[in-house]
Amino acid sequence: MTSSTLSALFDAKSVAVIGASSDPDRIGGRVLRFLRESGYEGTLFPINRSGAEIQGLPAYASILDVPEVPDQAIIVVPTGSVESALRDAIRKGVRSVVVLTAGFAEIDAQGRAVQERMAALCKAAGVRMIGPNSLGILNVESRLFSTFSVVLYGVRPKAGNIALATQSGAFGSALYGAATLRGMGFSKIVATGNEADVDVAEAIDYLAGDPGTRVIMAALESARDGRKLRRALLKAAHAQKPVIIMKVGRSALGAAAAATHTGSLAGNDAAYDAVFAECGAYRARSQEEMLDVAYLISTTGRLPVNNELGVLTSSGGIGVMVADACGDSGLTMPALPEAARTAMLELLPFAVAANPLDVTAQITSVRNGTVRALDVMLSNSSYGTTLAYLASAGLAPASFKSNYAQPLAELKARHPERDVVIVTLSVPEVDRELEKIGIPVFNDATRATLALGAAATIRARWANLYEPAEASRQARALGDVNTEALAKEALADAGLPVPRDVLAVDADAAVAAAEAMGYPVVLKIVSPQIVHKTEVGGVALDVRNADGVRAACRQILDSVRAHAPGAQIDGILVCPMIVGGTEMILGVNNDATFGPMILVGAGGVNTELYKDVSLVSAPLTPARAREALDRVKATALLKGWRGAAPKDMDALVAAMVKLSDFAMNHPEIVSVDVNPLVVRERGAAVLDAVIVKQ
Amino acid sequence: MTSSTLSALFDAKSVAVIGASSDPDRIGGRVLRFLRESGYEGTLFPINRSGAEIQGLPAYASILDVPEVPDQAIIVVPTGSVESALRDAIRKGVRSVVVLTAGFAEIDAQGRAVQERMAALCKAAGVRMIGPNSLGILNVESRLFSTFSVVLYGVRPKAGNIALATQSGAFGSALYGAATLRGMGFSKIVATGNEADVDVAEAIDYLAGDPGTRVIMAALESARDGRKLRRALLKAAHAQKPVIIMKVGRSALGAAAAATHTGSLAGNDAAYDAVFAECGAYRARSQEEMLDVAYLISTTGRLPVNNELGVLTSSGGIGVMVADACGDSGLTMPALPEAARTAMLELLPFAVAANPLDVTAQITSVRNGTVRALDVMLSNSSYGTTLAYLASAGLAPASFKSNYAQPLAELKARHPERDVVIVTLSVPEVDRELEKIGIPVFNDATRATLALGAAATIRARWANLYEPAEASRQARALGDVNTEALAKEALADAGLPVPRDVLAVDADAAVAAAEAMGYPVVLKIVSPQIVHKTEVGGVALDVRNADGVRAACRQILDSVRAHAPGAQIDGILVCPMIVGGTEMILGVNNDATFGPMILVGAGGVNTELYKDVSLVSAPLTPARAREALDRVKATALLKGWRGAAPKDMDALVAAMVKLSDFAMNHPEIVSVDVNPLVVRERGAAVLDAVIVKQ
Repeated sequence: MTSSTLSALFDAKSVAVIGASSDPDRIGGRVLRFLRESGYEGTLFPINRSGAEIQGLPAYASILDVPEVPDQAIIVVPTGSVESALRDAIRKGVRSVVVLTAGFAEIDAQGRAVQERMAALCKAAGVRMIGPNSLGILNVESRLFSTFSVVLYGVRPKAGNIALATQSGAFGSALYGAATLRGMGFSKIVATGNEADVDVAEAIDYLAGDPGTRVIMAALESARDGRKLRRALLKAAHAQKPVIIMKVGRSALGAAAAATHTGSLAGNDAAYDAVFAECGAYRARSQEEMLDVAYLISTTGRLPVNNELGVLTSSGGIGVMVADACGDSGLTMPALPEAARTAMLELLPFAVAANPLDVTAQITSVRNGTVRALDVMLSNSSYGTTLAYLASAGLAPASFKSNYAQPLAELKARHPERDVVIVTLSVPEVDRELEKIGIPVFNDATRATLALGAAATIRARWANLYEPAEASRQARALGDVNTEALAKEALADAGLPVPRDVLAVDADAAVAAAEAMGYPVVLKIVSPQIVHKTEVGGVALDVRNADGVRAACRQILDSVRAHAPGAQIDGILVCPMIVGGTEMILGVNNDATFGPMILVGAGGVNTELYKDVSLVSAPLTPARAREALDRVKATALLKGWRGAAPKDMDALVAAMVKLSDFAMNHPEIVSVDVNPLVVRERGAAVLDAVIVKQ
Repeated sequence: MTSSTLSALFDAKSVAVIGASSDPDRIGGRVLRFLRESGYEGTLFPINRSGAEIQGLPAYASILDVPEVPDQAIIVVPTGSVESALRDAIRKGVRSVVVLTAGFAEIDAQGRAVQERMAALCKAAGVRMIGPNSLGILNVESRLFSTFSVVLYGVRPKAGNIALATQSGAFGSALYGAATLRGMGFSKIVATGNEADVDVAEAIDYLAGDPGTRVIMAALESARDGRKLRRALLKAAHAQKPVIIMKVGRSALGAAAAATHTGSLAGNDAAYDAVFAECGAYRARSQEEMLDVAYLISTTGRLPVNNELGVLTSSGGIGVMVADACGDSGLTMPALPEAARTAMLELLPFAVAANPLDVTAQITSVRNGTVRALDVMLSNSSYGTTLAYLASAGLAPASFKSNYAQPLAELKARHPERDVVIVTLSVPEVDRELEKIGIPVFNDATRATLALGAAATIRARWANLYEPAEASRQARALGDVNTEALAKEALADAGLPVPRDVLAVDADAAVAAAEAMGYPVVLKIVSPQIVHKTEVGGVALDVRNADGVRAACRQILDSVRAHAPGAQIDGILVCPMIVGGTEMILGVNNDATFGPMILVGAGGVNTELYKDVSLVSAPLTPARAREALDRVKATALLKGWRGAAPKDMDALVAAMVKLSDFAMNHPEIVSVDVNPLVVRERGAAVLDAVIVKQ
């Protein structure tokens, strides 16, 4: 794949509509109608068996009859005729096809087979294909609307710097429809549908290199190729183009595979979260949030220069509300510097000269008071963004122009490096006027703040991008790991800090092992069939002498035989009794999309209770491991909690890196649970482990 | 206070505007202008020293000159003249005053004194007053707009069933301005300002009894009288009028007093949360959420009959998005019943017949397919609400009318007890048409779902309202409680399960105490100056014999003398060593607004780490105590975690109730921390306690 070939889709200078209809409201008629009405300046060739004329244009019975070679063929014929239409188009020599017709891989195996043949035909001919089962593409700059989306009955996207790549046509249409109603403008829109050829990842890659695109919105249900998606997101980040993604299925998915804690806590959806963060993208939680963030960045044309927010308001309550929303995001609200305070009180003696700055209702008594106060704020602080709450000023466009729009334009000229966001009730005329000078307008202070917080998150992620290296896998395959003893052995081989446990085949051997390692000891049943050892009476803690070992062995075996009569018993594991330290969990989940992911978090009971965990891609560097730990609340316990001695973070980080290497070296691993890993003042110890392999 | 007297404010049949101006854009002119333009049918009397005529109406130099007695006086004269204007108005015999002028208690002590005199004058005369420093009131039904809010330049509220009570005028104006732009209609709006007389609580109380009001929006910065607010909220709940509240200051406040964990976790803002829940109100997190919830309930006219949501969508992605949002709210999405599945597949063979129901893009091929599918869903399920996603259908009003609006009206007539919510991009004409038949329209599926979730929350709260009884306080005051030993003694007296600790004055006494209670024991320093005992080496655990006790006493005293040389030492507390059990925290915070609040949550280290706590009002019944526990994640550990024996919930609940009684009986208590309270298979034990009293 080279991304530039997608230009064949977007830059077509002539288009054949195969399946064009005279009825401008039928599917095949709609495509032609939208192309004609949109202002597309290329040549259109309606193709329809009836021939003659369609919607005032000369029509042809077959694309093969067209007197020149169209750049693009849009295919809207019934499902059964799509493949032959595609063959004709390829034979004619088109460079791109947009297949709107549905009824392929999304329906059944036969449909999938046809779709795969179509993809192979395109690949062999070097033709790029969108679809099938797609809502098509819109090059809004050139007015090439290769789509039958009914949204176009209501609104027509206007040109702008936002691009949209979406798998689902319905989802994507709703997005660009709503965006257009808000006055947002688009460069290119693509709905990839069944993705027989072009997928959302490739579309993002292309848009990252598209000069007309400043912000990318993307909507996914799933990614076919995790590495390709990573690469595309990183390319966009390096090109300084924020990507805002909706990935649906936050709660619904991921509940399936739960053989290990890691499997249930580190499901596929959590892996998307981790990869988006590593690749600098922002995941929106709703369509509206996606639009808010894209609108903000599209209008200012950039991310704010820092995460500091200054707030000006005529209502104390609104100021507190914004501060609340800041607390939920990545923004800070540094205090108003002393110089700014002094200057502000000179201008507005009645103001609460702080951040938020409350200019009170008396501001109306000062000519251009709000904008002058903003100027004082910008001139005497380092706030990258200033949010000004203007109540309902934007409802009166005439007075707004003289009182705000003009002074704000001058303000922007004086402080070109700072961003200003206005919150006001407003009419569209006021919004457009402010947007022209790079000032976004929101009607709701909380939404404005959350969008700014998203921009701050993207900034932070861009400063810390990560593409995991392609791993060189070790040749040697993993042996049996289906008991705690075997799993610990494998982890010890991999360099993790496993205590010197001994697998004893009988009570005598257990006593000998205990005497050799010193008391107290812990005894545990070892059986491939028994995962939850405590629940079958398979564990004895704090055993203090030889008699105790013998008694415990007897009791464990009796209890296990009673509770799990069919279980194969490999023996009893004799382990040193380790007390104190902080319990953590380490885990691996080999994600179907993104490969091995490493989990770290609060261990023991708290793992399930608080899900206080963090997930990152393998392979892991020590620095990445520390960042992951910083996102875990329980890490506070390791750092000298309430005057206690700090725990051995280095040992924990080393264990994380070793576990990551282990996972990279053994692709057959499905998941690993090390729970607990006890972190002590010196060193760490794997007290229990489960490994699931294919 | 009897609520009916507020009708003097809202039902005025004649109004004097004291400080009226000929300039319709100056403050005193604006009030008169808005009253004239709004369509108010009562008599208006402009009062201005210049006399003559103002804005075409006969004017008077003083209210005393008016030929009849106006029902209401609106006062907009400069601050210094307000008090005498009020005296004149009262002398004249008005029944209500609205003081818009600012410059009173919000400025300084002198302003506060004037304000208090004004309140006393009103009280003595039986006159009700709004303000001072208020944006006034709007009786939208009678078009009595006693306000100078600049929002009215842009929009004029239309009549409807939503009431708004707000402290802040700016905040409130923005709310009703935005609501009006969305087409929402109001019964009454009141901005209470400085609340010298009428406060938000009384306004809610009045609106709860107002026949024209169906939903109440309220915005608070703080409540003067917690009990009054409780009573008003409960009255609204009993009248089946949902109250949606914004209380600003979620994050900013509450960080101050942190002498105990309870103090920091149970700050004033958390107390508001608890009281709103107990009184059936819903706290919105943003202005927009408040409007969404009010819009939903205002349009359907009620809460849904149950919390079950059915979803119909033409996009699988949207369905998953709604399911995600449900997961965050109180809604459930029960599976589509078998009968509905069968009927649905008969109607739409291509549909994914589940909940969410995906009708796919092929729905367009079935005449009135969407509404017919809705009918099948409603006829064969118990979903209280059904959400239908119509993409952009609402952008085309002509086709929408025949394809959706008309069939939906028939559908509603067939299923009057069910609610339908439509999500579509739309023009206002479409919104108004659907609202007329009780169907709310949202442009964003997530927002619609969250608003439905809020309605579900209100439903659940109404089923479980709670007004704490007025306590009969015990006479006997609390003695000294400034050490662990004294605090535990007081708690033991109150009936909490405190182990039989002994305060030993020297090592011999400690040995005697330990021998009497049996080993192992725990020794702790007792000093009024030492709160964090571990940090000064003041604790010895697991001491197993007399020699150990002596050694530990020596070590503790040496360490404490070194670390806290000035501390007064009362002795050493000898406690039985209790191992096992689950650590919880119990606490009291005597909230400035709402009185004693009881906290329960995860104890030990997890208290601070995860803030896994729940707060409820005292006095506590056992049932309320159990509900509070059900909101704590750590409660899972008490209920037989992973096959372990369940802990003694009854003992924990009894301790909560005893602690609540203790707090009610001793109003001098500021806060109490019992951390940890260890809950065992049989019984519970207070292992440490701090009491702070006034």
